[in-house]
Amino acid sequence: MQRYKITIAYDGTRYAGWQVQPNAVTVQETLETALRDLTGEAARVHGSGRTDQGVHARGQAAHFDLENKTAAAGLRRGLNALLPGDIRIRKAETVPPSFHARRSARGKEYRYFIWNAEIVPPFLRLYRLHVRKKLDVSAMRAAARPLVGRHDFRSFAANPNRAVATHVRRVSRLEVRKRGAEIVVIAAGEGFLYRMVRSFAGWLIRVGEGAVASSEAAGVLAAGVRTARVPTAPAQGLFLWRVEY
Amino acid sequence: MQRYKITIAYDGTRYAGWQVQPNAVTVQETLETALRDLTGEAARVHGSGRTDQGVHARGQAAHFDLENKTAAAGLRRGLNALLPGDIRIRKAETVPPSFHARRSARGKEYRYFIWNAEIVPPFLRLYRLHVRKKLDVSAMRAAARPLVGRHDFRSFAANPNRAVATHVRRVSRLEVRKRGAEIVVIAAGEGFLYRMVRSFAGWLIRVGEGAVASSEAAGVLAAGVRTARVPTAPAQGLFLWRVEY
Repeated sequence: MQRYKITIAYDGTRYAGWQVQPNAVTVQETLETALRDLTGEAARVHGSGRTDQGVHARGQAAHFDLENKTAAAGLRRGLNALLPGDIRIRKAETVPPSFHARRSARGKEYRYFIWNAEIVPPFLRLYRLHVRKKLDVSAMRAAARPLVGRHDFRSFAANPNRAVATHVRRVSRLEVRKRGAEIVVIAAGEGFLYRMVRSFAGWLIRVGEGAVASSEAAGVLAAGVRTARVPTAPAQGLFLWRVEY
Repeated sequence: MQRYKITIAYDGTRYAGWQVQPNAVTVQETLETALRDLTGEAARVHGSGRTDQGVHARGQAAHFDLENKTAAAGLRRGLNALLPGDIRIRKAETVPPSFHARRSARGKEYRYFIWNAEIVPPFLRLYRLHVRKKLDVSAMRAAARPLVGRHDFRSFAANPNRAVATHVRRVSRLEVRKRGAEIVVIAAGEGFLYRMVRSFAGWLIRVGEGAVASSEAAGVLAAGVRTARVPTAPAQGLFLWRVEY
């Protein structure tokens, strides 16, 4: 038996997210089908984590086991030949059996892309959140600062009542970049709560629009309760950018 | 009556090209429908020229006449609100009645985009031609050079028997740019024959792959007959980049 790690890019537009579910096409299921067609083995593909419906990935990671050893380069080429063009295997490699895509992950980076102009170029429409109103990037940066570090992020979790051991997470980086009409929110950390990055984006956009003062960030965080002050930004702007091992 | 000029970007993927035709959705028809819904007037939208099925535009231009004067900015906003996201009005402006999108055009620029790597990022798959084999960009540049200038381009017209007054055209620019995996063929001139830019791209790709020597360019041009040496590159890599007036 050999364990393999794959690095995957996908356009999430037409998928019901990463995880296999009945009556919906998912990225995981599409990968498992291609893998079975290629190798004849019904292997389970374990991702580093789920992505929601419509969320994209530039660098999702996953692992699986095969009974019959295959060259990693052939696996990559074979899978890419069988997969639809909206899912691409960027890299395939052999890893020791101790490697686990979720448990071995040391950190993740997400990027949320906003197009801040009157119109979105047609070629980017599926990969950017369109915000017409001119955003105040300095205010967004000020509102991001208090969120960096180790905090209870209950105020930024989509479902704060969901059974998780703790809402404490360490955010190592929350940066707002601007280049022309494009504004990117970069969030990195050991791990994130459910829809936490989209909640960061939703919050920062509200601040950028002037609906909330950036000085409220610390208070929102300390409140420890999710309110309408923090909306969840739409899926289409979000990319799982990188998983670190 | 007032004449308007619009500058349009579109993702050609799901359109049967620019021009209205029965039983197919076209860009022209989609624009005319939006214009009628917005103004109540059944105006014809005259483009600077047609684009084929699947060809994209960053800067197509068109004109139309309205009986009832409307502010150009309102026209742009109103059309963008009614149009699908794969067609965007970048600019709307009033022009004198002497302006004609096709006849007033002084020149056009097309860009053909190639992705020269093992895989195409999923987010670019509809906007790039995928070429796996490493292309020799120097050879492509050498093969492009003899095509610049005023020539009979019969060898690079898709249907050389089509009734046109002349196959002579002046190409002011034919440039091959490379940045990472992306190779762009930039073609500019007063006007182009049917599928001439895609024929340039097809020819240059064959040279880049090493299937034909770049030194054959002058001979192919002089032959004045279209042969299999010059394939037509697929539509999806082509963008109508700019129309000059």
